[in-house]
Amino acid sequence: MQSQTTARQSDQQAIRQMVDRWLEASKQGDVETVLNLMADDVLFITPGREPFGKDTFASNNEQMQDVEMDTDIDIKEIEVLGDWAWMRSFLRITFTKGGESTKRSGHILTILNKRPDGQWVIKRDANFVAPER
Amino acid sequence: MQSQTTARQSDQQAIRQMVDRWLEASKQGDVETVLNLMADDVLFITPGREPFGKDTFASNNEQMQDVEMDTDIDIKEIEVLGDWAWMRSFLRITFTKGGESTKRSGHILTILNKRPDGQWVIKRDANFVAPER
Repeated sequence: MQSQTTARQSDQQAIRQMVDRWLEASKQGDVETVLNLMADDVLFITPGREPFGKDTFASNNEQMQDVEMDTDIDIKEIEVLGDWAWMRSFLRITFTKGGESTKRSGHILTILNKRPDGQWVIKRDANFVAPER
Repeated sequence: MQSQTTARQSDQQAIRQMVDRWLEASKQGDVETVLNLMADDVLFITPGREPFGKDTFASNNEQMQDVEMDTDIDIKEIEVLGDWAWMRSFLRITFTKGGESTKRSGHILTILNKRPDGQWVIKRDANFVAPER
């Protein structure tokens, strides 16, 4: 049992590192890295539109070229189940463009999958991030 | 491997039956049954409010006493991982009160857990059900 607990802790650690890499790459506008941290059949579920995959994520991202971004994530819980995991978090994003800032925030429920190469990737992401009121 | 596949299929079947029981009990106003199909520490994540648990679910439900309800669920995928599972679905609900009908619909990402007594229950529910536009 000890080794299972240790494996789970190291998987939780790997998932936290993956989230840090995701957010850092997003800030840098490094879409390549972000796309590589998703499963090929990833689906993002967001309010008011149909779930979308990798291609739509990438083209949404292109519209953000001249926007500066700062993020702050609070990971509430991570549950690891072998090669699968789920995570609940709260994300706040500050966008800055031409000196004007807007804030978006919301809860996220994420399903993750460990790839054969050991990298944790996002499989499903139920994302409630919306403009702050 | 054969037996694992069979176990997974029977778990998927059990989850579908649980969803049917949930929706049928909701229609009947049988809150007791619905509450028994949730983990004690269940969390519902919905747009524009803080995640809430069993107590808030129950008191929300009390306000629905004289509302008739019809539901139609499309289960898009169920992935079983031992005693855990996740499910993606699309739910449409029609509420009728005093002859007036309103429709709500949306995607749902659900984390389920199998209780020691074998009953699948809802653990986390990211629920985008909102008024239809």
